[in-house]
Amino acid sequence: MTFKIPMRALLTASALCTAVVFGVVGAADTDKALLEQARSLFKPLPDTARVDDYPHSQARIDLGKALFFETRVSSDGRMSCAACHSPSYHGADSLAFSVGVHGKKLPRNASTVFNTPLLIAQHYGGNRVTVEEQAMKALLSPLAYGNKDYAEAEAKLKSIGYQPLFDKAFPNEANSVNAENWAKAIGAFERTLLTPAPFDKYLKGDQRAISTEAKIGLEKFMSVGCAGCHNGVTVGGQMYQKFGLVEDYWLATGSKEVEALKGRDMGRWHDTQKPEDKFIFKVPQLRNVAMTPPYFHDGSVEKLDDAVRVMARLQLGKQLSDEDVKHIVAFLHTLTGDVPKQFISAPILPVSAFNN
Amino acid sequence: MTFKIPMRALLTASALCTAVVFGVVGAADTDKALLEQARSLFKPLPDTARVDDYPHSQARIDLGKALFFETRVSSDGRMSCAACHSPSYHGADSLAFSVGVHGKKLPRNASTVFNTPLLIAQHYGGNRVTVEEQAMKALLSPLAYGNKDYAEAEAKLKSIGYQPLFDKAFPNEANSVNAENWAKAIGAFERTLLTPAPFDKYLKGDQRAISTEAKIGLEKFMSVGCAGCHNGVTVGGQMYQKFGLVEDYWLATGSKEVEALKGRDMGRWHDTQKPEDKFIFKVPQLRNVAMTPPYFHDGSVEKLDDAVRVMARLQLGKQLSDEDVKHIVAFLHTLTGDVPKQFISAPILPVSAFNN
Repeated sequence: MTFKIPMRALLTASALCTAVVFGVVGAADTDKALLEQARSLFKPLPDTARVDDYPHSQARIDLGKALFFETRVSSDGRMSCAACHSPSYHGADSLAFSVGVHGKKLPRNASTVFNTPLLIAQHYGGNRVTVEEQAMKALLSPLAYGNKDYAEAEAKLKSIGYQPLFDKAFPNEANSVNAENWAKAIGAFERTLLTPAPFDKYLKGDQRAISTEAKIGLEKFMSVGCAGCHNGVTVGGQMYQKFGLVEDYWLATGSKEVEALKGRDMGRWHDTQKPEDKFIFKVPQLRNVAMTPPYFHDGSVEKLDDAVRVMARLQLGKQLSDEDVKHIVAFLHTLTGDVPKQFISAPILPVSAFNN
Repeated sequence: MTFKIPMRALLTASALCTAVVFGVVGAADTDKALLEQARSLFKPLPDTARVDDYPHSQARIDLGKALFFETRVSSDGRMSCAACHSPSYHGADSLAFSVGVHGKKLPRNASTVFNTPLLIAQHYGGNRVTVEEQAMKALLSPLAYGNKDYAEAEAKLKSIGYQPLFDKAFPNEANSVNAENWAKAIGAFERTLLTPAPFDKYLKGDQRAISTEAKIGLEKFMSVGCAGCHNGVTVGGQMYQKFGLVEDYWLATGSKEVEALKGRDMGRWHDTQKPEDKFIFKVPQLRNVAMTPPYFHDGSVEKLDDAVRVMARLQLGKQLSDEDVKHIVAFLHTLTGDVPKQFISAPILPVSAFNN
């Protein structure tokens, strides 16, 4: 097993320098250098994704969980956050394109909801910043919940029987049932959905938390250049990038034209109409990537090893060997955390009929 | 608190007879007579709904649970048993009409899945006898899973990665992944979904398990005639009956014509085409009725008290007082059991993409 030791690691790890000078780099030293380099690029998950703007009580989290699974606020009585972000599919839905109200196909693949409050923005196009903004605007999206205005959604919430739950979660507000509080409650719940993984244990110093194969993959992931975009606490999700730097993405992925976008998906351009935003997408986080196929904004690639090959080719102009791919995939598996317990158990929702 | 003491109770309870002769009927005697009468009409839930035809191993129940929540066997990748039978809605979906694949509206309201193996048949029209038959035929229904044949469904199951789980659940079979075994596994899971309720404790002799108000309601439920059809272990679900014996049901319920049935819902007639089956429906079980609005085959009535009034008027030609309705509703609440624990926790499903 050999590693290319990057300059920064050599300069910062003086003990290792000595070893290198004498031409004897032991396994322990190599392990230490790799961990140093990994720590310079990645961070373990924090204990919480709460922020001061969104104070969390248990009542608010419980309400948010109920609303996350609630279908009766959508125009067909069937759509919920959980419809695309299911505990059974690691916070996603396993579909190439998600399906919204009235069976309408959404223009993009659903990313996992796990760890999303830590991302730079929500959605592949980044047209929602916080999870709260995403939850609120989904109420009016004709493909998601399909309400004509917030008043309609609020009336449904009251009619279902949510008033006492909102009052408990927002105790000092006269009119607690409103779209802002819908968003704050769902956000409070989503901010609990963090998935610490073996890689976090590794970053915290437990060398045995990931396999030798995964360590080789980690080194490869950094040396090949993947970590140039997929870095930070969520191993991606911290910047925007053009999809298809080296060649057009659809040539490598076999993606189809997107009906809802009336043609090729051009990323942020659809929101901004700026030429420089053509084919610019948010770099997806890679936490739980092994559990959430299919891959890319259009779900055009089904297997993780194929996705790794496509990325190396399209973004870095590199042809990876089967061995390299195998190791990188082994590393990516160390980013898989458990589905949070509070997400696995379904909430019992207020008893009320939906007349569709 | 007074009860009309029915003849049968008077004749069978000799101690009570003595009390009546002396003009002194104590509360304890009245309670005893009521319990006697209730026991002649209803039975507590059994511990299991397993039958010899469908042997159950834990592996088979676990597979059945996974399949119950599995969406990728449907033609849009979104439909599952759990879509209409959700843990959040007490085994139903709270919609007037359920929604199937590709957003298609089903012709009838979804009943709760709880305790259904104990019913005389499945569906309002009774066109499926066992829960296994229901699960199997749903695979091909164009409104439910929408597969063109069983081979298509079986190929999907294999492609998702279910082979090892079927092999474990059906250990002595060469080709374990098939529609019959899909049905047997789902049936094995569904047969665990029994919901013992306060009324069961009462039937077993615990007089304090239900309130005085509920006891008055129980007496009324029997004396008015509701128990003529709603009887047995599931308090209904054991026979067929014409909906609208006294007058046409749609005059009382405000039900709309059903698009999928091309007009008025005529019950079993749609399956048999026999004139005597017009407007004949399976009598629904009343277990968990308080948790599963809206009511009737078409979800045309939203509130339980209205449903009770409609039933008395349409089936028995009786106008109930508000007091009577209140008491009967209190009794119906004693039929509510907890959502089974094994149903509340979501299964983690095999990792595989669905290309829609």
